[in-house]
Order: sequence, then C-alpha cells, then structure tokens
Amino acid sequence: MSPTNQSKFPLVVIIGGGFGGLQVAKHLANKPVEVLLLDKHNYHTFQPLLYQVATGSLEAESIGFSLRKNFEGQKNLRFRIAEVNRVNTDANTIDTTIGTIAYDYLVIATGSTTNFFGNEDVEKYAMPMKSIPEALNLRYMVLQNLEEAILKPSKDERMPYLSFVLVGAGPTGVELAGALAELRNHVLNRDYPELPKDEMKVYLVDFLPKVLGPFSDEGSKAAEDFLTGMGVDLMLNEKVQSYDGNVIKFESGKSIRTKNVIWSAGVMGVIPEGIAKDSIERGNRIRVDNICRAAGSTNIFAIGDVAAMITDETPKGHPGVAQVAIQMGELTGKNIARLVNGEQPKPFKYNDKGSLATIGRNKAIADLGKLKFQGFFAWLVWMFVHLISLMGGRNRVIVFINWVASYVNNNGGSRLIIRNFKTEELVDKNEQVSKPD
Amino acid sequence: MSPTNQSKFPLVVIIGGGFGGLQVAKHLANKPVEVLLLDKHNYHTFQPLLYQVATGSLEAESIGFSLRKNFEGQKNLRFRIAEVNRVNTDANTIDTTIGTIAYDYLVIATGSTTNFFGNEDVEKYAMPMKSIPEALNLRYMVLQNLEEAILKPSKDERMPYLSFVLVGAGPTGVELAGALAELRNHVLNRDYPELPKDEMKVYLVDFLPKVLGPFSDEGSKAAEDFLTGMGVDLMLNEKVQSYDGNVIKFESGKSIRTKNVIWSAGVMGVIPEGIAKDSIERGNRIRVDNICRAAGSTNIFAIGDVAAMITDETPKGHPGVAQVAIQMGELTGKNIARLVNGEQPKPFKYNDKGSLATIGRNKAIADLGKLKFQGFFAWLVWMFVHLISLMGGRNRVIVFINWVASYVNNNGGSRLIIRNFKTEELVDKNEQVSKPD
Repeated sequence: MSPTNQSKFPLVVIIGGGFGGLQVAKHLANKPVEVLLLDKHNYHTFQPLLYQVATGSLEAESIGFSLRKNFEGQKNLRFRIAEVNRVNTDANTIDTTIGTIAYDYLVIATGSTTNFFGNEDVEKYAMPMKSIPEALNLRYMVLQNLEEAILKPSKDERMPYLSFVLVGAGPTGVELAGALAELRNHVLNRDYPELPKDEMKVYLVDFLPKVLGPFSDEGSKAAEDFLTGMGVDLMLNEKVQSYDGNVIKFESGKSIRTKNVIWSAGVMGVIPEGIAKDSIERGNRIRVDNICRAAGSTNIFAIGDVAAMITDETPKGHPGVAQVAIQMGELTGKNIARLVNGEQPKPFKYNDKGSLATIGRNKAIADLGKLKFQGFFAWLVWMFVHLISLMGGRNRVIVFINWVASYVNNNGGSRLIIRNFKTEELVDKNEQVSKPD
Repeated sequence: MSPTNQSKFPLVVIIGGGFGGLQVAKHLANKPVEVLLLDKHNYHTFQPLLYQVATGSLEAESIGFSLRKNFEGQKNLRFRIAEVNRVNTDANTIDTTIGTIAYDYLVIATGSTTNFFGNEDVEKYAMPMKSIPEALNLRYMVLQNLEEAILKPSKDERMPYLSFVLVGAGPTGVELAGALAELRNHVLNRDYPELPKDEMKVYLVDFLPKVLGPFSDEGSKAAEDFLTGMGVDLMLNEKVQSYDGNVIKFESGKSIRTKNVIWSAGVMGVIPEGIAKDSIERGNRIRVDNICRAAGSTNIFAIGDVAAMITDETPKGHPGVAQVAIQMGELTGKNIARLVNGEQPKPFKYNDKGSLATIGRNKAIADLGKLKFQGFFAWLVWMFVHLISLMGGRNRVIVFINWVASYVNNNGGSRLIIRNFKTEELVDKNEQVSKPD
C-alpha cells in the first residue's frame, strides 16, 4: 500500500500534524486533491498544555489526539507515520523513512524544536519540553528526584534534587514555574511529609529584565508579582554559562547546585535537508512570500514556526504561536485549492487575538489587544480558551474534570512514575523517549 | 532520611503495594507499629483492568494510584521506592536497592509474574501483561503493527502484522481477545480504511479444552459463544511448542505467522532470595500456615499470589485472584496488630465472592456461587464491581466517562503511540519499560 499518488488528482503532501498542518488538511477536504499527511507521531500535540503533563496535572492522552481518528471522515486523506529526511525540490519528491514520495504540492509544517544556542553541555544535561515524550520525561525526573531527595540524610545532599531551575521566562517557563511552586506549596507536605517544604526551590531565569517578554509591561509585572508571591525565585538579567548535570553557572558569577534544569529559552525551526540555504532565515526558518510559499518555489509552502514571512510590518516574521500556525494553515489549505482550480491565491494577514498565560490557581495574565487584565477572570478566560481549543469531546470533558478536581482538593494529578529512569542517566535523555536501536 | 526504624514501636516492613500489601498497611493505621511500605513503583496497579490499558480504552493513570497519595493521612507509614534483593531471616533484615533495613515483622506481598514455563524463546519474543509498562508496550505493539501493515503491499506481507495470538484463555486472555475483536470490528474500518478488516485475525489459544478454565461450564460455554460470535478463532487443546518472533508453532503441527504473541498462560510468585528452598511450593509460592505466616518463621508473612496456604480444602493453595490477596492482607494487618498487643492471631478463611469476566460490549460472564448469568446484566455487574473497586474518585469518574464514551460511539480510547519502538526490536522488550543501564 504505497503512499504514492494513484488518483487523477494532484497530491498534496503535508509534513507535520501540528496546529498548522491540521488546518491545511482540513481545508482540503472535499477538494479535487489527494492529501497525504505525514507525522513522526500518530497524534496531534496540544502544546499549550504540555506543562500540565510535565507537572502531572493532566495525562498525556488528554492533550494528544489521534490523527487517524481526527480524519476518519475525510475520504481524500491518507495518513502515515514517517519522518522526512530530504526534499528534492527539482524532482518534486521527498525522501522519507517509508520511502520516496512524489508530490504536486508540499506543505512544510514541521514546527520547531528546542534551541540550545550551540551550548552543547546544556543540551546534554538540561531537559527540553516540546513534545509529549519530553513532558513525560520531565514529569518522571521531577518525581524521581523527590524520591531521591527523601533518601538523602542531610539538607546539603538533598539540595540538588530539590532545586528546580527553569531557563526561559516565556509562557512555558512561567507556567512551569507556577505549577512547580503549587506542587511545593500544596502537595509536598502531603506526599512527602518527611521533606521540609522550604528546601524545595523553584528558580525562573531569563536574560531579559522581565518575564513574559512579548507581553505588555502591565502583564509582565503582574506575572512577576504572582510568581514571587508563590515563592518562585526570579533571576532576571541572568545568562546561563554552563551546566554539567550538577551545577548551573551564570555569567554573573552566580551558580546553583541542581539536578533539574529545564530549558525553554528558545526554539528553532525544523527543516528537512534540501531546502536552499539562502532561503533559511534567523531561527532556522524558511523565508516565505505573502502566500506562505517558500522562497524560490512554486509548489512548496512553509507555515507556522518553520516559516519566516518577513515584511515591513513583520521584520522578524511572526511570533511562534499556535494562532499564527492555525491561520497560515487555514490560508494555505484554501490557497492550494484555489491554485488547483486555477484561481488566484490570497495573501496572509495575521489576526492577532492576543496572549494568555497562566501562573496558577486563580492567577493568569490576559493581553487581548487593548484589553488587559490579570487574576481570577483572566484565569477563567485562559481555562475556557484552552478547553474549547482541545481536540475531542472526551478530552475536553476529562481535562475539565481534572481541573475541577485539582481546584477542589488542591491535589490534582496522579503523579505516577511509569518509567523508572535514574537521574544519573539523563545523559541519554533523548533515548528515553523511544527504544534504543 | 534512613528508612530504618527510629521509633519505639516495632517496624512492619511490607514488600509490595498490590491488593494485599495495601490492606496490610491500611489495617495497621493507628496501631502501635511503624509501617514501611516498599514497592518498585510509586503506584498501585489495578490489574483487572490492565487489558483495557493494553487495548487503549483506558489510560494508564486511570488504573494506577499513587501510593504516597493513598497513604497521605496515615501518620505511622512511610513509603519508599525500592526493590528487595534478599531476606536475611536470621538477622531479621532485608537487602534492598536503598540499603539494608531491619524489620520486626515482614510481609511479603510481592505478587506474581508471567510464567513462561522455561520456554526461553517464547519468553524472548512473546509479550507479557502483568504491569502497566507491559500493558503500554502491548498497546504500542498493536498500534505499531497496524501502522506497519498498512505499508505492506500484499496480503501475504501484511498477515504477520495483523495476526494476534493470545496464549492462555483465562480472564486476561478472554478479555484481551474480546477487546481486540472489538478493535477490529468497530475501529479498523474507521482508522485504517485501507486495511481490509477481515485480514485482522484474533486467535485465542489454550491447552485446556475450554476457555475460562476455573469458571462453571455454563460460563465457559457462554464465553466461547460470545468470542466466536465476535470473530475470535478459538484454538483449544493446543500447546505452544515454539515462537521465534515470526512463527508460532503448536505441538499439533499447526503454525501461525505472527508478530504479535501475547502470553497470559501462567503466573509464578516473585520471591526474594533468602527464603528457605524447602518452603517453596509449586508456582514459586511460599508455603504459609493458616495465619499466612511463612513456613518456619515467626515474624515473616506471605500473602496473595506469592503465598501457598495448603490445607485439606485447598490442596493447591488459593487461586491467584485479587480477593484472596485482599482478604489475606486484611487478616495479616489485623493479626500483626493482635500479635503486637499480645493477642491471639486469627486463622484465614477465604470468602469466595465468585468470578466475573467480560468479553465485550454487553457481554460478560458472572459466576457468583450458585448464581450464574451471562450477557448484558453480567456486563453491568462487571462494570459496577470494577468501578467501585478502583482507587480514587477521580479515577472512577474518568473511567466511567471513558466507558460511556466508548459505549456511545463504539470508538473509545485515544490510541496514541507515545513511544516509538519498532517491532523488530521486540527482542529487547524488557528494555522498553525502563531506561537501559
């Protein structure tokens, strides 16, 4: 059952079932095209709630949704688990782990991965959190290190296991910091009564002078107040120098002994081989024109985190957020249908709906254009928006129940260590997510 | 923070947080003892629903429950993740992965593991299902092999990926067979429209002439009718000769090409080193007296699957079911409290509440003493009993919602392949459940 096109319609190959790729596929339903969706996983990941998987509040399956199930009704779509190694732009083919596939239109919706900015020892020892397997690894690391701490006889020996250093104070870092602080404030006493609560430290580090960099000053300030109120140690204007798995050092000369460094300080696009080097912009993104078409190509599109649409209004391209991917995906799906029909494609126009970030129970930040508010109401808005954005009715119900249960008893999440990895083995952290060869 | 006893009360060490160990711990609350509960996982596993994790109907976290969370209120109990390597009966100590621990009373509640009856190649290639990590491995194997099948161009090449051979027609095998048949009957067409449904085969093998051996003949017969009605191929009176990862051969001369052999044909007790060889009975169980005390010992108890209480009424000991472990655990907890108080321990008397097994939607078997019934009402009873037996209100609600959703749309479960292992690597199947050293 070769995934090669056997119909009379042009074949649109979409690489990646993230926010962008999903929209492309959806908007090609009932159009005169064949769609082949490729992803290295068989599920879509709702990345905004990854941090709740990492801290054990939600199960992985609540924020993942089967791509096959999602497209059950779409007759012109096939799905394959595959990784794409190379795009042969001249031949209009891609080399994948399931063979070479010829395309008529190609949509690169491969998203982004963690950017360690070339710091190899940090990359080796710090934990990223861009995928469900990574979020699970992080969860097990946190729980495993609490278990390790309880075995140590002195405060000094426990310290590295109980110190959590989050590098990058964007929404991911802020939300993780809040969730870890809540774990300390509400769960530690109950689950680990032998561990003195104040020995657990949560540090949030950024090289900028503020948290939530792209938010309004009002929002950033409120987030900082929430975080310090919950006992998070803010370390702003601090740049990481090194991390060897035991001590993280900063350029200021400060250092922290820790077994737990979580890196959310940057992302970079994931680009298959074969894309012309001169069309690759800062952040490893493919330069695209105003209809998301890759520079120099007529039938290759790039959308979302992997696209850099550089215009006068967006000299750095668009922010790497779900809304950009969703809107670019929707447009690209429609534009491909237009092109196939001999119609004119329409240009991209980003509709910025604003930003939300949550810090914890009753605490969130909403920057919705001119409307800025913080606290309980922002938190309700945050929950509502995330709940309706989730895929699958079952997921929505289960996430809602989990949130209600957490709110009522302040003790959400099941906190099971299903894999038993030792912190000493974090060197091979990438191996944990799949079987070693 | 050494787990060694520092109080004036005697220390009861319980090895294993299964059905039995939990009861011992619970019945020692508020008694003049210190309790140390050890388990290699930080959670209790509700084994009767493991097969639903394996087939993706339930998430792992719904049938696991944090041991720390469970004992939050019990002041005299500490918990440690540890494996016990050896019992030094003379010194009253155990050697564990977290050091040597002295006990006053020891309760061995280590349960059982899969018994391959010395067939090493079967052990190497067949999948067991006695733990949550094993059930998850099984789930990923099933889904991964459906993904592999869809890549194969011919029916002949697809066959080994689409043939599922379940060895052992006890409740686990019967329930798995039913769940896999439902996957084929209701899900395959929708998720894998390119795979011809009738190419997927489910074989249920047993060396006995009937399924559900210990059930009544009426129950067994009804189960067989349900299974064949759902399209399961029953292979009774068949003994496995060999399995090399590609072909399973039977002593009758029959053989099946398959990548999926699931072994639930037997269990054996898990006994730490140091227990006198002459007190070990058939099935690797520790012979115990009528108060569950290990033969030749005054302060070591064994309960549940790892105990063999051989009497005139029970010449083979008790069946390896949850109810035996629960009742032995409850008694042992109370008896230890009695012994500490200088009172007389009471003997064990098994109250057999009967057996339940489910085959699928509206199909279950109930053998409750003289009361025997099958079908829809048995299925309701099965669901009710399992729901109330689950630990944690949140788990009960979420399992209930999942069951309702599955019932309504016949398409339950999220079916995500969160780990990417290749079937070719099943040789190292034990490695999948934890990080390799």
